Amino acid sequence: MLTNFLTTADWTRDELEGLIASALRFKSGEDASKPLAGKSIALVFFNPSLRTRASMQVGIYELGGNAVVLEPGGTSWTLEHRAGVVMDGDKTEHVAEFVRVLGRYCAAIGVRTFAALKSWEEERRDPVLSAFAEYADVPLINLESAMHHPCQSLADMMTIREKFGDGKKRVSLVWAWHPKPLPMAVPNSFALAAAQMGHELTIAHPPGYELDDALMHEINTRAFDAGSVVRVTNDVDEAFDGAEVVYAKSWGSRHFYGAPEDDIETRAPFRQEWIVDEAKMARTTDDSVFMHCLPVRRNVIVTDHVIDSGASVVIDEAENRLHAQKAIMARLLKDEGLLKDEG
Amino acid sequence: MLTNFLTTADWTRDELEGLIASALRFKSGEDASKPLAGKSIALVFFNPSLRTRASMQVGIYELGGNAVVLEPGGTSWTLEHRAGVVMDGDKTEHVAEFVRVLGRYCAAIGVRTFAALKSWEEERRDPVLSAFAEYADVPLINLESAMHHPCQSLADMMTIREKFGDGKKRVSLVWAWHPKPLPMAVPNSFALAAAQMGHELTIAHPPGYELDDALMHEINTRAFDAGSVVRVTNDVDEAFDGAEVVYAKSWGSRHFYGAPEDDIETRAPFRQEWIVDEAKMARTTDDSVFMHCLPVRRNVIVTDHVIDSGASVVIDEAENRLHAQKAIMARLLKDEGLLKDEG
Amino acid sequence: MLTNFLTTADWTRDELEGLIASALRFKSGEDASKPLAGKSIALVFFNPSLRTRASMQVGIYELGGNAVVLEPGGTSWTLEHRAGVVMDGDKTEHVAEFVRVLGRYCAAIGVRTFAALKSWEEERRDPVLSAFAEYADVPLINLESAMHHPCQSLADMMTIREKFGDGKKRVSLVWAWHPKPLPMAVPNSFALAAAQMGHELTIAHPPGYELDDALMHEINTRAFDAGSVVRVTNDVDEAFDGAEVVYAKSWGSRHFYGAPEDDIETRAPFRQEWIVDEAKMARTTDDSVFMHCLPVRRNVIVTDHVIDSGASVVIDEAENRLHAQKAIMARLLKDEGLLKDEG
Repeated sequence: MLTNFLTTADWTRDELEGLIASALRFKSGEDASKPLAGKSIALVFFNPSLRTRASMQVGIYELGGNAVVLEPGGTSWTLEHRAGVVMDGDKTEHVAEFVRVLGRYCAAIGVRTFAALKSWEEERRDPVLSAFAEYADVPLINLESAMHHPCQSLADMMTIREKFGDGKKRVSLVWAWHPKPLPMAVPNSFALAAAQMGHELTIAHPPGYELDDALMHEINTRAFDAGSVVRVTNDVDEAFDGAEVVYAKSWGSRHFYGAPEDDIETRAPFRQEWIVDEAKMARTTDDSVFMHCLPVRRNVIVTDHVIDSGASVVIDEAENRLHAQKAIMARLLKDEGLLKDEG
Repeated sequence: MLTNFLTTADWTRDELEGLIASALRFKSGEDASKPLAGKSIALVFFNPSLRTRASMQVGIYELGGNAVVLEPGGTSWTLEHRAGVVMDGDKTEHVAEFVRVLGRYCAAIGVRTFAALKSWEEERRDPVLSAFAEYADVPLINLESAMHHPCQSLADMMTIREKFGDGKKRVSLVWAWHPKPLPMAVPNSFALAAAQMGHELTIAHPPGYELDDALMHEINTRAFDAGSVVRVTNDVDEAFDGAEVVYAKSWGSRHFYGAPEDDIETRAPFRQEWIVDEAKMARTTDDSVFMHCLPVRRNVIVTDHVIDSGASVVIDEAENRLHAQKAIMARLLKDEGLLKDEG
Repeated sequence: MLTNFLTTADWTRDELEGLIASALRFKSGEDASKPLAGKSIALVFFNPSLRTRASMQVGIYELGGNAVVLEPGGTSWTLEHRAGVVMDGDKTEHVAEFVRVLGRYCAAIGVRTFAALKSWEEERRDPVLSAFAEYADVPLINLESAMHHPCQSLADMMTIREKFGDGKKRVSLVWAWHPKPLPMAVPNSFALAAAQMGHELTIAHPPGYELDDALMHEINTRAFDAGSVVRVTNDVDEAFDGAEVVYAKSWGSRHFYGAPEDDIETRAPFRQEWIVDEAKMARTTDDSVFMHCLPVRRNVIVTDHVIDSGASVVIDEAENRLHAQKAIMARLLKDEGLLKDEG
């Protein structure tokens, strides 16, 4: 009963390959089907968004459907996600009602809910997304949660496929400095998907910026299943040497959730060491590509020179969000239809 | 010349029955007409919304049309509604221009504008909605004003009809405690519509939480016309004894408009006495239902046990907003077309 | 390669006449084509909007397309527009990526970005709009920038044509008092378009409220080319004497950019002298019209008497925004299609 898209870990490599193939058919125009005709999809944003907001709205329209955008705490009510709470504080509505009501109006729900970077133990369990999943009775799409951004990582895997064709690639996920601590959803999901796809993955970051232990175990297991291994290093040069794909991303240390000032101080020395620049890119292969999920701070994460070079595929990645999400929505609603037919 | 939907008081019982019948045809799929094809509807939100925002956007799409959402003071300009004012303060645009301009782009306008709970004498006259109605030359739909929420009460009457079929039901509108004073639009409109439909209505609240006098006169008159009577009580048990429908809602006292602290202090003792819980629901009939317009604060207005029980129809009520509003929009635009043909 | 609509200065008089003719065909219903079928248009709002937001959404829908609304710094990320910056401040994304990504999802981009009224030398070069234009690879529509509001001025020229037919009219752009300094985009674009259309233009304002020197040179040149001349006066009565069109608008002095308090103090004495009232309108021709782009502050810019009189065409102007913008979008996408065919 696969009706949600919460993390690529719930999908087999074959299923992910199927989604990428479908996305490529949408991109080429070969697939111009409109499986959402007459249907509405709710898009729930707890946080700002450009690519997700725009590409979901465009994708839903191109599939024949209607996007309904809601911002809890902004245009819509503040939401409580914890079970059993006496709601006499500042939250107006419970996710239980919010999600069930939307399920009566809409054929699927997408939700974006970033980590607050306050409590690692709480946020690593993805509490808001989990509450949505618990109560939803229509397919749920993760548009970036505290722990995962699977639409991004599917678009990333599609982009690597487009640039390099089939097979195992040397892929490096490289930490970068940023003026403030950022959530870990993108590195988590990129590493997981790259492992699932069997790429030769290097994860490089300063000491203290390790990904979640349980997730690393999952990543290693999936890599092994796909016939590959994952390397973790604190040496930035090692990440660039011979890499075909450089995937840059800043994230905060899970050891400093709730203590942003400590995080900022700890990584201050790494700023120049970890920026993606021409000299580091010279260590990669001749046909290597530079990737980033965007938004990116120019001359902080990556120099103008690199992001404006021919190696940069960041705009293609962003475009592929559209096609990948169309594939995901078409698949979820097809599964949902089959389930209903069987039910 | 019936082209607005501002309060059910403007509609006869037969007309309300007609709207409910139409809503049921939309719900069953029997009516799949698209009377809004090629038309846009403006949705103007001075306040947050989930159900109204989502169900109106979905309903307009399902009727073939295009929803245009505006938030005065947010995405759009701040609005002045008083006539004759020298506008050298903080308001940028007058409702006179706002509404007339929208009437050139859109086939109808929906507006949500809550009571500010500052001046009872002013707000009981529904000043912002009245200004919209004065200047609009396209059909106007009240999406909750200071005094009324007729889309909600029509969906509520439809829900009672679905659960119990035709005929007079024992319906109780029961006040509940809430951490801050809330507007009275929902209790006003529910009581009025229940009276118009001829239900045996009980209104229960602590002393001091009476509805508006003129409105109570209207409610009593409509109940009498429909062959019924309305009972008002300060005894919470009386509201539950033998009730078929328990409709819970918190509202602020009109005696404390402008003095929220006094309101909060006055009703503090009523918190446990008025919460809808298992014990109180045991006083109702075996097939009774629990209703609330949502959003609802769990374990404040109603316990988890009751809202999660089989008696709870809150999600059905919310769903029926969609169907009821489709019926309202279809009817208003049909009337408008007939008027234009006659004009 | 005319694929943007940034200022009417980029378009010849014949081309503007063609757009007005197209707009009139959309208005009459003669043109019901859907050139945007299957296409999405991004609408980027840095500032509030009623007419632009609503008329663009309706126009895109009526042309068969899908509007995607984004608010940088609100629903979307904060944007940096300067080239070469080290982005370690408060801006999250660069216009370079923002615009290129949107170009992958959408067939055109509209952008609203007001003057901040902080640095005249910087803002007169329209920096944000220019950055959008530099990076965009789809047609770009100016929905009001620091210096221009060409959609408004095209609708204004269309309105004058509707009211008075072909030929040169006596048109006065008249400054008005307002509680705070406002941007100059509307007066700039109105004066420019009126000059391009060959109207007999008078620009009236208190001393110190001159338009930009380079723009005035452009306005005079265009008027000369169209066989007309432009008069500038500090005498309010002169602007009304014999005028057929009175176009009122407040704007701040470019001498006080960054010093709003000085601006407010300087013009305080002009409040009653420059308001558009019955007495001033009595100096105009019998069939003269009153125009304003809206939103307008009643009894500050113009009296209730004048704006509610038969001479007021402000609602027609606002309606014409819809038709003019449909003409602009249809034309840009047609040009874009031709360019692609040739490319």
